[in-house]
Amino acid sequence: MRIDIVSLFPEFFDAFFSHSIIKRAIEAERLSMGVTNPRDFSHNKHGQVDDTPYGGGAGMLMMAPPIFEAVESVIAQYDSDINSAYSIDEMCDEMSLIGNPSESIRRRVIFMGPTGQPFTQEKARELATYDQLVLICGHYEGVDYRVEEHLVDETISIGDYVLTGGELPAMVVVDAVARMIPGVLGAASGAQEDSFYEPLLECPQYTKPPEFRGWVVPDVLRSGHHKNIATWRQKEALKRTRLLRPDLLERPLTKEEIKLLKEIVEEESRL
Amino acid sequence: MRIDIVSLFPEFFDAFFSHSIIKRAIEAERLSMGVTNPRDFSHNKHGQVDDTPYGGGAGMLMMAPPIFEAVESVIAQYDSDINSAYSIDEMCDEMSLIGNPSESIRRRVIFMGPTGQPFTQEKARELATYDQLVLICGHYEGVDYRVEEHLVDETISIGDYVLTGGELPAMVVVDAVARMIPGVLGAASGAQEDSFYEPLLECPQYTKPPEFRGWVVPDVLRSGHHKNIATWRQKEALKRTRLLRPDLLERPLTKEEIKLLKEIVEEESRL
Repeated sequence: MRIDIVSLFPEFFDAFFSHSIIKRAIEAERLSMGVTNPRDFSHNKHGQVDDTPYGGGAGMLMMAPPIFEAVESVIAQYDSDINSAYSIDEMCDEMSLIGNPSESIRRRVIFMGPTGQPFTQEKARELATYDQLVLICGHYEGVDYRVEEHLVDETISIGDYVLTGGELPAMVVVDAVARMIPGVLGAASGAQEDSFYEPLLECPQYTKPPEFRGWVVPDVLRSGHHKNIATWRQKEALKRTRLLRPDLLERPLTKEEIKLLKEIVEEESRL
Repeated sequence: MRIDIVSLFPEFFDAFFSHSIIKRAIEAERLSMGVTNPRDFSHNKHGQVDDTPYGGGAGMLMMAPPIFEAVESVIAQYDSDINSAYSIDEMCDEMSLIGNPSESIRRRVIFMGPTGQPFTQEKARELATYDQLVLICGHYEGVDYRVEEHLVDETISIGDYVLTGGELPAMVVVDAVARMIPGVLGAASGAQEDSFYEPLLECPQYTKPPEFRGWVVPDVLRSGHHKNIATWRQKEALKRTRLLRPDLLERPLTKEEIKLLKEIVEEESRL
């Protein structure tokens, strides 16, 4: 998978690319990444990429043309890489039979912006199936609307709060998507147990020391009794979800979940 | 305001601190920031900070003691800085009258985790009123639950998606909070017009060129007629909000909003 970020601040991503899951995905050749600066596509000798809004108002807006051209350049680059990789690997006459391989590329151009649809784990899973993602980071007071209207496939918001630019949201999307690319997380990883893979919050977890400042790890977790441990974990996950995020329980529940929820309600009524 | 981040990856924050709004807030002396590594508080000569979960399961958990001690150290440091600043600035006898100034410090210890309450603009505004925030970043498969149970005031989630660690969420919170600290954004800034300050999505905005690839800026924005521009903007904001985030309209509406929404519905029924 290829992810291209279009941002006025490429150096902002240096530490991000060299850390943790992204580094691992790149080294495993499951992901390649790049940052392209719209300033390199400015039509102005001063490298101007922003201007005042029509109709007045405070602040500056990012201009459309440099963003269009930055996005078009990373798309053309990807298509050209795919075509040349293909023509080396395959027979030329086969190519002429199936046509241009770049036509079947699954690609998504996304604007990171506050007016977008909320980003979710479901969306991360979907985006991980594309061949190329292009994430456009807004900055200043906003971006000329023609970018959203005529260039992007969708706008994504990571939450209902105001941030300075689209760079942090882009990193959030890349991190969540990279985890979903097959082969990026180790097979034995705990990813499938994380919150939001399952529709429950995680249960409390404990590691050494068994006692810290008088607070002890629950006995059941040290019992070695696998069935009891599994039941305790599911029940604690339900308890936390019911307390903190009851909205996550507004779905069809399993028989086991209904049984445990009844126990939880009974136990609470006894307190 | 002081914000301390507790993270195993301090270098991850270098680019973040030297950019944009955070840099501006630090230079204006409205904000000071630091990152403290729990590894410096490991009880083990190898710097161990994680261990396997009790009860079995994949992955490693961050241990509680190094996190407790890292948080306690940044709290003690802040109190000591405040006390020494106070004793230099003020008469010693006055101090004895009003007691220890560190007792009145408004402080919040926050765990960045998927089981937290959703982060919102309202929360950013609230957090900007504290003297010190301590943001704890989880990593690996999770953190010993005693941290959430006995150390933190609250857990915050930036959204319903799974990330590798708490570092990106901490940056998101710092960015949103820094914008809310009085004096950080210039007085003339567009902050008050951004999405989520007002309970509507932003209206479309345009800058030069007036025509790009055949797409023109709406006439009204180039008319110079301030009242028409203001009405157009409010109506477009309502249109977008109704289309993309109708949940944001589930609140008491103003008379003007109701009038414009009626117009929007009528215009759509004519199409």
